[in-house]
Amino acid sequence: MELNWKLSDITVFDSIVFCCFYLSNSFVYFCTMMNQRDTICAIATGGQAGAIAVLRVSGPEAITITSKCFRPSVQTKTLANCKGGTVVFGRIMDGSEIVDEVLISVFRAPRSFTGEETIEIACHGSVYLQQRILELLLKMGARLALPGEFTQRAFLNGKMDLSQAEAVADLIGASSKASHRIAMHQMRGGFAGELTLLHDEMVKISALLELELDFSEEDVEFADRTLLLDIATRIRHKVQSLSQSFKVGNAIKNGIPVVIAGETNVGKSTLLNALLKEERALVSDIHGTTRDTVEDTITLGGIHFRFIDTAGLRNTVDVVEQMGIDRTRSKLGMAEIALAVAEITLPLEVILAKVQEIKNHSAEASVVCILNKADKLSDDDVQARVEIVKQKLDLPVVAISAKFFIGIDELESLLVKVSGAADVGENTLVVSNLRHYEALVKAGDAIDRVISGLNQGITADFIAMDIRQCQHYLGEITGTFTNHEILGYIFKNFCIGK
Amino acid sequence: MELNWKLSDITVFDSIVFCCFYLSNSFVYFCTMMNQRDTICAIATGGQAGAIAVLRVSGPEAITITSKCFRPSVQTKTLANCKGGTVVFGRIMDGSEIVDEVLISVFRAPRSFTGEETIEIACHGSVYLQQRILELLLKMGARLALPGEFTQRAFLNGKMDLSQAEAVADLIGASSKASHRIAMHQMRGGFAGELTLLHDEMVKISALLELELDFSEEDVEFADRTLLLDIATRIRHKVQSLSQSFKVGNAIKNGIPVVIAGETNVGKSTLLNALLKEERALVSDIHGTTRDTVEDTITLGGIHFRFIDTAGLRNTVDVVEQMGIDRTRSKLGMAEIALAVAEITLPLEVILAKVQEIKNHSAEASVVCILNKADKLSDDDVQARVEIVKQKLDLPVVAISAKFFIGIDELESLLVKVSGAADVGENTLVVSNLRHYEALVKAGDAIDRVISGLNQGITADFIAMDIRQCQHYLGEITGTFTNHEILGYIFKNFCIGK
Repeated sequence: MELNWKLSDITVFDSIVFCCFYLSNSFVYFCTMMNQRDTICAIATGGQAGAIAVLRVSGPEAITITSKCFRPSVQTKTLANCKGGTVVFGRIMDGSEIVDEVLISVFRAPRSFTGEETIEIACHGSVYLQQRILELLLKMGARLALPGEFTQRAFLNGKMDLSQAEAVADLIGASSKASHRIAMHQMRGGFAGELTLLHDEMVKISALLELELDFSEEDVEFADRTLLLDIATRIRHKVQSLSQSFKVGNAIKNGIPVVIAGETNVGKSTLLNALLKEERALVSDIHGTTRDTVEDTITLGGIHFRFIDTAGLRNTVDVVEQMGIDRTRSKLGMAEIALAVAEITLPLEVILAKVQEIKNHSAEASVVCILNKADKLSDDDVQARVEIVKQKLDLPVVAISAKFFIGIDELESLLVKVSGAADVGENTLVVSNLRHYEALVKAGDAIDRVISGLNQGITADFIAMDIRQCQHYLGEITGTFTNHEILGYIFKNFCIGK
Repeated sequence: MELNWKLSDITVFDSIVFCCFYLSNSFVYFCTMMNQRDTICAIATGGQAGAIAVLRVSGPEAITITSKCFRPSVQTKTLANCKGGTVVFGRIMDGSEIVDEVLISVFRAPRSFTGEETIEIACHGSVYLQQRILELLLKMGARLALPGEFTQRAFLNGKMDLSQAEAVADLIGASSKASHRIAMHQMRGGFAGELTLLHDEMVKISALLELELDFSEEDVEFADRTLLLDIATRIRHKVQSLSQSFKVGNAIKNGIPVVIAGETNVGKSTLLNALLKEERALVSDIHGTTRDTVEDTITLGGIHFRFIDTAGLRNTVDVVEQMGIDRTRSKLGMAEIALAVAEITLPLEVILAKVQEIKNHSAEASVVCILNKADKLSDDDVQARVEIVKQKLDLPVVAISAKFFIGIDELESLLVKVSGAADVGENTLVVSNLRHYEALVKAGDAIDRVISGLNQGITADFIAMDIRQCQHYLGEITGTFTNHEILGYIFKNFCIGK
């Protein structure tokens, strides 16, 4: 079957050409870059002082512009003569004044990050010098790059898909092993791979349906509805599992919220300090010392945890303290993990009641029961109580002494295990980007409509429309279908120089 | 005449070999590097987050160590196969896990900054990734570089002299056009050039004197004392002019101190604000508002000025204010430039008296007279008063209205001119390093002794000793004569990664 492409519209915006095609009956938007006429430059290494700094120039004039202010140490070794992937030593000149001695790396189109002619200048890392060389490049005809413009060009030149481009920003922002792993996997095209599989499945459905539409007067059914239903269900399953991974992906990216809850004076602040290994929260023996929620993050086993200390849950007449307690309850609702802290020396039924109360407030959070002040009982007593609470409440239980650092290591391992983030392997695809998540949810809705349409036996044209919508939303993730607003939104959050 | 070298002592410290020679009668210390066995690594781009970051590895094992955690994208393009000055794309691997996609530049000994095998890894610029790759390199056998160790190796491998190595740090620290220019000139070997000239002169003297010493029993004078005196005087002149340039060099490097002095309520704080173009100092109409000295810096015409606002000079019974006034007087003594501010509306004899008083307190500072509140008189009146003050006091005078920003541009130009820093051309050698200054002063003292010895007709052996001392101090600057303490002192102030 041959697909029927018809060009319907062209829009040019920012030297990007947006082409709208009819593909058989459906609109498909393609964006392609016709001519990025200008050459952009930026400081790529953050702009602060260091031993060295790197400036990046990309565009058709990158070599010409840089050559205007560069004098190679070996006269014949001009940038124009250089092969891609070579480094040249020389001087940046402002007229006759020597500005710096630099190393310049030359990359030839299309074998560069952006796919364009690219120059990287490694200069001495004073802020003054970086600015001075940047100004020189601007004077010679380059334009200051917009945030993310290098990566945007890489995308527009087909060096990577949109989800990979976004992963570049995630990679730069990654601050833990787990978030780094997700970003790296996505940058390597993990997402595109999964989506290509889904796309191929979808093409199967739509090809058959489109054929029916072409012969719609004849009222034939080329597509076996049972087969279609089977494929659609598989797609829904995959889309759902991807969108469900967002919960853990987002938590990994932004830190897993952990609330420490329990009665006042049970040692919540001391526990937080023990985990943070510093005196962060105010600790005293007076009931209700911690009135506000204190946030702090630690990385355990390569996973970020965002700890939220809370005021206790004790009933109180103090208005300020009552506000703190209300906040505790609302924080509990948002937590991924709730640490229910109780004193191990209390009567067992009291412990069980208190932990149960926290569990009731904890909505979807995984609750871990912590029995504090274990130093006050014998080891046997501690072990016995832990076992009983474990059985009665069906929760992971750990006995600690926050004050004497007993059981903290065990608690840390438990946290990593409960978070579920440790299960995210090197090759697990986890969605961590809100835009992708939203597109997946919309694609899921569309495929739901396909399934219910098939079940209800509605006509091929409606089903085909939903399939096209599903394809569209999935295509938005990799940038197959995109528009100027989406691109603008994505790249404005990049740092300049990337 | 053949020089007579005898090895007298060898010390090994930190794998650096210090050799002590007798050169004829004088001790000469040479330091040479026998074997820098270990390979060092560091983050070279400051360590903060950016689009990209660069790590540097240097030493005999640089390529072997990096290869252990690098997989080139083209399998045959291994680092070991690479020529110097090429860039290779590939992945940093931690076992089977992909850590990052990077560009690696390969530099082959001796054609690198350090003179050793060198690798530069350009990775994505998250702090996490930089640390992760650094840890990998350490795991593979590299050692974390000490501050300045790359530059130290460059010096020890004969890639630059000591004053050039120090200029690298100055270049990185340079924050204005003028300080950048001094550092650049020094890095390019300006200092070494001047010192070589002095050294050649000195060799002339000492060669003749040493000859006399070899025949000391025979009481002959090979060296024409008049000629010696002539050469010594020329050396003294050069050494003096270099050490005198330290005043302006140091001011350029650290900012030229400018004190704003004058009666209370004359508008000193308003003037400072006008120069800083922001509301920095507290301004009010109450006499004696500014009690403490406020420091702030601005860059005018590429030169840093450090502005010191002062309490007024008015006599007062207020103890706190009196302390401020005393401080003003002491600040005046340390200023390079004193701005004597007076109200233009006052009787001329009062203006003259007040400005004269400030001038008396200003020791060696260049005084500029500022007649403020010029908006309160007609242009003709202003002009007339400016001319009279100029004639009577023989000072540069400028009429301004700090409040209405009148005359501020003219004042700024005048400041640049008075500073003398603008005269420091691209090829002027200015001493900006305290260590160099101190060595020059000691060399000057030694050559003074040579001159007075020649004038007094003392024997050749004493004169020769002073000449050797002079040579020694000058040699300390470029590192011809150096020792472990000096090296340690110099490089400990470098940043890591340089």
